[in-house]
Amino acid sequence: MRRQGSGPRSLPQSGPGSATATGGPLDALFDPGSITVVGASDDSAKWGHILSRRALESSGDRPVLLINRRGAEVLGRRTHCTLAEARDHLGEPLDLVVVCVPAADLVQTVADAVGAGARSLVVITAGLSELGSDGALAEQAVVRLTRSGGAVLVGPNCIGVVDTSTQLQLSHDVLPAGPVAVLSQSGNLVLDLAALLKDRALGVSRFVSLGNQADLTVVDLMASCLDHPSTQAVAIYAEDVVDGRAFVAAARELRAAGKPVILLAPGRSSAAVRSAVSHTGSLTSAYRVVDAACAAAGAHRVDNPTQMADLLQGLLAPRRMSGRSVSILTDGGGHGAMAADALAAVGLETPVLSEVTRTQLRALLRPSSTVSNPVDLAGAGERDSMTYVQAMTTLLAADEVDGVLITGYFGGYSTQVSAVAALEIAAARVMADLVAGQSKPVVVHTIHPDGQTGRLLRSAGIPVHRDIDRAAAVLAGLVESPLVEQDDLTLLPPVAPVTDASYDGARRLFADAGVSFSPAHTVRSPAELEAALEAAEMGFPLVLKAMGRLHKSEGGGVVLGLPDADSVRAAYATMLADLHPPAVSVETMVDTSHGVEVIVGCVRDPRFGPVLMVGLGGVFTEVFADTALAIAPVSAAGARQLLLSLRAAPLLLGARGRDPVDLDALSVMIARVSDLAAAHPELVEVELNPVFAGSAGAVALDARVVLGQSPSTSRR
Amino acid sequence: MRRQGSGPRSLPQSGPGSATATGGPLDALFDPGSITVVGASDDSAKWGHILSRRALESSGDRPVLLINRRGAEVLGRRTHCTLAEARDHLGEPLDLVVVCVPAADLVQTVADAVGAGARSLVVITAGLSELGSDGALAEQAVVRLTRSGGAVLVGPNCIGVVDTSTQLQLSHDVLPAGPVAVLSQSGNLVLDLAALLKDRALGVSRFVSLGNQADLTVVDLMASCLDHPSTQAVAIYAEDVVDGRAFVAAARELRAAGKPVILLAPGRSSAAVRSAVSHTGSLTSAYRVVDAACAAAGAHRVDNPTQMADLLQGLLAPRRMSGRSVSILTDGGGHGAMAADALAAVGLETPVLSEVTRTQLRALLRPSSTVSNPVDLAGAGERDSMTYVQAMTTLLAADEVDGVLITGYFGGYSTQVSAVAALEIAAARVMADLVAGQSKPVVVHTIHPDGQTGRLLRSAGIPVHRDIDRAAAVLAGLVESPLVEQDDLTLLPPVAPVTDASYDGARRLFADAGVSFSPAHTVRSPAELEAALEAAEMGFPLVLKAMGRLHKSEGGGVVLGLPDADSVRAAYATMLADLHPPAVSVETMVDTSHGVEVIVGCVRDPRFGPVLMVGLGGVFTEVFADTALAIAPVSAAGARQLLLSLRAAPLLLGARGRDPVDLDALSVMIARVSDLAAAHPELVEVELNPVFAGSAGAVALDARVVLGQSPSTSRR
Repeated sequence: MRRQGSGPRSLPQSGPGSATATGGPLDALFDPGSITVVGASDDSAKWGHILSRRALESSGDRPVLLINRRGAEVLGRRTHCTLAEARDHLGEPLDLVVVCVPAADLVQTVADAVGAGARSLVVITAGLSELGSDGALAEQAVVRLTRSGGAVLVGPNCIGVVDTSTQLQLSHDVLPAGPVAVLSQSGNLVLDLAALLKDRALGVSRFVSLGNQADLTVVDLMASCLDHPSTQAVAIYAEDVVDGRAFVAAARELRAAGKPVILLAPGRSSAAVRSAVSHTGSLTSAYRVVDAACAAAGAHRVDNPTQMADLLQGLLAPRRMSGRSVSILTDGGGHGAMAADALAAVGLETPVLSEVTRTQLRALLRPSSTVSNPVDLAGAGERDSMTYVQAMTTLLAADEVDGVLITGYFGGYSTQVSAVAALEIAAARVMADLVAGQSKPVVVHTIHPDGQTGRLLRSAGIPVHRDIDRAAAVLAGLVESPLVEQDDLTLLPPVAPVTDASYDGARRLFADAGVSFSPAHTVRSPAELEAALEAAEMGFPLVLKAMGRLHKSEGGGVVLGLPDADSVRAAYATMLADLHPPAVSVETMVDTSHGVEVIVGCVRDPRFGPVLMVGLGGVFTEVFADTALAIAPVSAAGARQLLLSLRAAPLLLGARGRDPVDLDALSVMIARVSDLAAAHPELVEVELNPVFAGSAGAVALDARVVLGQSPSTSRR
Repeated sequence: MRRQGSGPRSLPQSGPGSATATGGPLDALFDPGSITVVGASDDSAKWGHILSRRALESSGDRPVLLINRRGAEVLGRRTHCTLAEARDHLGEPLDLVVVCVPAADLVQTVADAVGAGARSLVVITAGLSELGSDGALAEQAVVRLTRSGGAVLVGPNCIGVVDTSTQLQLSHDVLPAGPVAVLSQSGNLVLDLAALLKDRALGVSRFVSLGNQADLTVVDLMASCLDHPSTQAVAIYAEDVVDGRAFVAAARELRAAGKPVILLAPGRSSAAVRSAVSHTGSLTSAYRVVDAACAAAGAHRVDNPTQMADLLQGLLAPRRMSGRSVSILTDGGGHGAMAADALAAVGLETPVLSEVTRTQLRALLRPSSTVSNPVDLAGAGERDSMTYVQAMTTLLAADEVDGVLITGYFGGYSTQVSAVAALEIAAARVMADLVAGQSKPVVVHTIHPDGQTGRLLRSAGIPVHRDIDRAAAVLAGLVESPLVEQDDLTLLPPVAPVTDASYDGARRLFADAGVSFSPAHTVRSPAELEAALEAAEMGFPLVLKAMGRLHKSEGGGVVLGLPDADSVRAAYATMLADLHPPAVSVETMVDTSHGVEVIVGCVRDPRFGPVLMVGLGGVFTEVFADTALAIAPVSAAGARQLLLSLRAAPLLLGARGRDPVDLDALSVMIARVSDLAAAHPELVEVELNPVFAGSAGAVALDARVVLGQSPSTSRR
């Protein structure tokens, strides 16, 4: 039912008569001059009722018009029978129209709305998919009508739109105002997230229920947040980002504008891995492609609303971790140890502090305190809460510390009826000021997050958590990770399309792109074999590969290690007799005993276009799934980052007494493969498997390309 | 400062005059006839004040006596200057004595307490470690005095003891009563956990602050929970379990008695990995050894108090998952997808339901509902809450379902002011009864956990969570996993100790235990070499190994693949000239091209004794750390389980076109190695690396043992 790669829409400009504050292209949606609800109803279980109520509650002098087919009174208000009647009543074109009619009436309603001047439509109507191909046609008709009228449309099958900066509340629940734009394909998700944000004293700047994304997609709506002053971060729930490349570009723009993007896109557990003839394809799951897209975009990926809310809270403060070193400040050994484990579980480190820092801490603390890391006040904080502040100040000033995690009882004194309460609150106040005046994040875990101290710290933008794993996860989310090194994520200008997917053709294609192969001749007769044997560049041992087979190596299609001309001739004869190949490739065998075998491939994802995969060959890829993905193309520097992100990277760097491989040559080769895939939308897969990487260069030992139809996302 | 492997104490029998309900050996501790606090104080910041107050609050007719050196009034009560005076005042021997005196006064105070008849001591006194060796001596003296007086002692350096079944509250905070015994080496941990338990309508049966475990250890206190009727589960925070084998045995006994054991023992992040000369040692971290011990004991391991409280809540209900298949019941696609991801993240599955179950669900639900798995009511639940109950009933009755996860909005209707509230509460009531009447767990995730529905379900023993990852983790913790197959975890009866740690000796030792090696001769002269070359069993190619070196393979100490007698002679001469080895082992080389190399070793952990490690050799062990550990000895069946738990297990089973290896032979060999280590406490390490495992047997290609002092934990 969803739009499969229809072209990106050029958004209508805001008209001169638009009653908007910002003048953005989607003001008709977010700050309409009037609201009209079609399908208004007095049945409180119906969307037409709920949205009529919300429209009337949306404050200001915005006119609200209700359309009820029978003209029945709704919520004590008169209704109009038709959109034309409403327009006449208003005396000017309608602006935003909310559509809550049955699926069968949708096309006519949209036509009427556009006819009545609607500049934006929010289509709640669901059930189109139940109509089968009629539903798909109806959706296409609706989009056509909308665009021809110069309007925009959210949905169908959405649950509404909210903009708290314009007091527009057109959804099931009234959402709390705050800095987070929420773009969601799930209705319940926004209820979930809004409740979590409220618990954290946060709220929503905008909410758009994406629905089927028939017209406006998540990418259009991301773009609309760029200049929306109330939006400081963008939270997205999407099962389909529609146009992957545009998503990456939009997320990059938001990041550059200081508005972090957090994506919740399930799929980790999906058993539906795209079927593919090739090895590369069978390992590239959609979930990991989205991870690669997030890495390219500098977007944050989360798996559930709680992680999303926690990370939003952290990201809305300006402080970031410039590395992975955390200092733990605790008042008990147990909490310190558990915190160190929690940090390790999310990839953060708790290294021993420098001697300088330890000396400073020793001067502050009691003899029984430990100052290595975790820093354990061991009771000093109980006697004087300011000890926490002093120790924290020392840690934040230390070069080796990227962030501070306070864990244990601190926060609990303010819940006691005793003098320590006031002391802790005073300390927390100083702490909040100190944290605000510098750039390293501080996160607090405490048994008592909801005391006065916890509330005070939270309102100062310091995350306060009840659970140590959540606190650690926030710090991990605040690590500034550089974008994948890639010059340009748009695809390369298309060149003459590849038409020859033979092994020969694939080798030529890669070789022209600068990939090294060992010497080879394709022979079609004994005479050609003799010529190949006499060629100066060949030497022994040789390899024979039978052409014209899906998997060359099966059933004797590849013969390795032929030591001399006679053995080559014999093997050739056997191969001809057994397999009748149209041709045989005679290749110089590469000595692979000192080096590693690498697999390099690109598959074309229907949403994100060419996706590069690199890994070490054999069991590393097949058994351990130790591969790294990136949105192609990548530069050589980006390829190097990918290689070094492999768990097996030590093997490339010379583990177990090996020589380190020539990472420069290998990285350049990988970048060239990714460029090739990016320039050839007709290639649905390209693969070099294996590539032999030694200490002095990298040589491809096999090559494969698969031709297919260019999917629509590969458009420029 | 902690007791390093002193013998297990035999607990004193409860005396005939004991005023106890259960008559258990630790009744003097948990249900004392009187309480005496030494170091009672009116300074509210001091432990001597807090515990005096708690003792006086502990209800019943239990006499409380306060000792203050100066006889000053405390909490408005008269005090005694000495323990002897208190005893005279009471007119009978003192029973429980709480010691809050400075470290320097500890020994005399304990002597006085024992002299005044104390049967149990709770020693709050800390700071012994600051006294260095004097502190250690003081601790030993205190234990000696206690035991010679037939008493028991908790601490030193503890924060108290609680037994809510006897109204004994001798700790910093008054703890809520409930079914969980908490044994903790961290003071703040119990405050943390108690608060979390209270949030879950749970509480504490007993709490013991373990302190230094100088006399009573965690194992003694676990044993005391066995017959404690109020205790239904045991939660332990321990950085040191003192006697690992006894810990495993005690946990097994508790498990058998239906009292689950949950262990929080940090150490995942420790950079302090025990130094070891050997490969095996360097990969066996303490954290993983404790995991192996938990597997042997059937104990649950957690990393933080939140996980602990969540899992306790799940385990306190009798329902368990008999497999890993979960059915998700949701009212929205987004929550269903996120739940499936959350389940996958904890190793659970969401398989497609059987056709029978799907047909039953289709009959119940709306056409727009999906019935595969997740089961998405798609609005049906909103119209009628009983739909949830009907669908849940169908799922619980399905053979393919091991547990049900309800996720989304359900629980939120009861928070609305509308008719749906009453409907949801009624449905929840039916749900609670249905769940109670069967054996599969149901866990609920909801946006509104604290509404009436949430409270109702929770009080019926159904975990209700705000966060989907927590809900999934509880289901994972409820999977019943079989104990590691091992007949007997006690060590084998010691046999004649090994004294020869040479390569020769090691080979003989392993060979006598039934391990296969390839034919070998140790030669000390050219003449012996000739004899070896003529030996019928040898054949070619051969291998030479220089003896008397720490690492045979370094610097030319191993020469492989010698194809004939001349090449052997030449290599022998070179080896003699270069390395001057005392002897050379001449061995038939095994063709390892068709099979896998395995590493098998045991190291002796100071707490848990011999720990078996198996893994695939080379990069699998070194780069991927793909090893499996078990407390030795294990049976062949247990060894097989370990092998199959490796990530690289597919390689053993025939991945990538290999023949499957002879798992029976390999498992038997591993079991024999573990028996050998268990029978020889003097061997701190034994190792076969590599073992070649082929399709018809397993052969060790190298062997090594390291002699050391038998650590105390290897006692029977």
